[in-house]
Amino acid sequence: MNVTLNQAEKILAAAKAKAEKIGVAMNIAIVDEGANLKLFCRMDGALLGCADIAIKKAKTSRFFDMGSGEIGKLSQPGGSLYNIEHSNGGLISFAGGMVLINGDDKIIGAIGISGGTVAQDEEVAVAGANAI
Amino acid sequence: MNVTLNQAEKILAAAKAKAEKIGVAMNIAIVDEGANLKLFCRMDGALLGCADIAIKKAKTSRFFDMGSGEIGKLSQPGGSLYNIEHSNGGLISFAGGMVLINGDDKIIGAIGISGGTVAQDEEVAVAGANAI
Amino acid sequence: MNVTLNQAEKILAAAKAKAEKIGVAMNIAIVDEGANLKLFCRMDGALLGCADIAIKKAKTSRFFDMGSGEIGKLSQPGGSLYNIEHSNGGLISFAGGMVLINGDDKIIGAIGISGGTVAQDEEVAVAGANAI
Amino acid sequence: MNVTLNQAEKILAAAKAKAEKIGVAMNIAIVDEGANLKLFCRMDGALLGCADIAIKKAKTSRFFDMGSGEIGKLSQPGGSLYNIEHSNGGLISFAGGMVLINGDDKIIGAIGISGGTVAQDEEVAVAGANAI
Repeated sequence: MNVTLNQAEKILAAAKAKAEKIGVAMNIAIVDEGANLKLFCRMDGALLGCADIAIKKAKTSRFFDMGSGEIGKLSQPGGSLYNIEHSNGGLISFAGGMVLINGDDKIIGAIGISGGTVAQDEEVAVAGANAI
Repeated sequence: MNVTLNQAEKILAAAKAKAEKIGVAMNIAIVDEGANLKLFCRMDGALLGCADIAIKKAKTSRFFDMGSGEIGKLSQPGGSLYNIEHSNGGLISFAGGMVLINGDDKIIGAIGISGGTVAQDEEVAVAGANAI
Repeated sequence: MNVTLNQAEKILAAAKAKAEKIGVAMNIAIVDEGANLKLFCRMDGALLGCADIAIKKAKTSRFFDMGSGEIGKLSQPGGSLYNIEHSNGGLISFAGGMVLINGDDKIIGAIGISGGTVAQDEEVAVAGANAI
Repeated sequence: MNVTLNQAEKILAAAKAKAEKIGVAMNIAIVDEGANLKLFCRMDGALLGCADIAIKKAKTSRFFDMGSGEIGKLSQPGGSLYNIEHSNGGLISFAGGMVLINGDDKIIGAIGISGGTVAQDEEVAVAGANAI
């Protein structure tokens, strides 16, 4: 199963609503099952450098089927996955990315958020992911 | 002046409506004044390789403030801009990309479409650009 | 539907058998539905630079759901897709790549062959694709 | 001496058998004496992002003729090879990659495994390397 555009639009709308509610301009990226970009939005005033980060968080989550922040726990100096960020054209390994799971408990893609604090990014990602 | 998300959403909606009307699944990309990605959508069933092409058409248009197809006329063997496609991380120089102009006749960004024939891509790009 | 390893192994075996039969050492690449590498083999003595070409032919075919050589017919100077090879991290647009279609007429991936003449590459790709 | 396809196939089969025995879907990469990809396999269900990691582990091992994890011991903050991962298009410096040595004690290539825990990856790499 692959995320449909209809599902992706619902996820984006929910993430954007949450971002507006907490008052932070975000970059929002959704990738499909194959980790390819499906939908992307940079809100007005969102940090320019956070666009690539949002996309990479989404890809990172789908590449390893876990939250981007989980990777970061393992990739610290001395950690088992130290410097894994050099793979796959560059990973982002702090929170704000997570897989998208449909009603049948299948991974259908991933979402990545960047623009606020890492905690804010994660909050917006959760809001998006919960929309389906 | 920079394209706002509100404007970009209108442009995207108009492009998508035209794509649905002609029955071709398209990749739709909108970049801002700085040639940075603002909004992107891959319609269900759109060719996978056309996502990057749509983004590159939009960037190419804004990089040189002309339609992507205009560049292609100059980049042919023997032409004045022969193989300019090697610059800027890769250009796409056939039609389907064009600048976005607001009511004050200012360039505020660009749109790139890919997924159909070049003529179809261009038709959808025009529909999007005319929405503002 | 995505190509399984079992299917990919049958395709690779058929391609390799054909390559041995015509006496040319080939690079054989199979990508899945998402254009990600699934199986790759460089036969002993196969040209080193043809490894990347085989992979790019497979990706190119899946990116646009057509034979890699079909792209090349359109990407010539003056053609409608001139210099499309600059997209997607580099395409290869001569023959030797084709999509893989299963019994239900669904595209499940693509194969790319490189190492011989373009005609030989294509012959080996056909042999591989016909194995399923 | 260079790893032959026949040797590489034996190594791959042994690695795959071990991966199946421990029940983890792995990406398996074998590079030759020149650190160029010789044979690659992504098992069904193996993590998508681990394909590039398997290839980079194999290359890293052959680039420096030591286990990929040995590099990681030296590339930590304050270490003598700090951030060496930035070289050669990206290294992976945790375990799961090792050189392949033939009966005459010559290095003929390297293997890289990714898909499980680092300990599992290493276990599968050892199984592969011991097949010759």
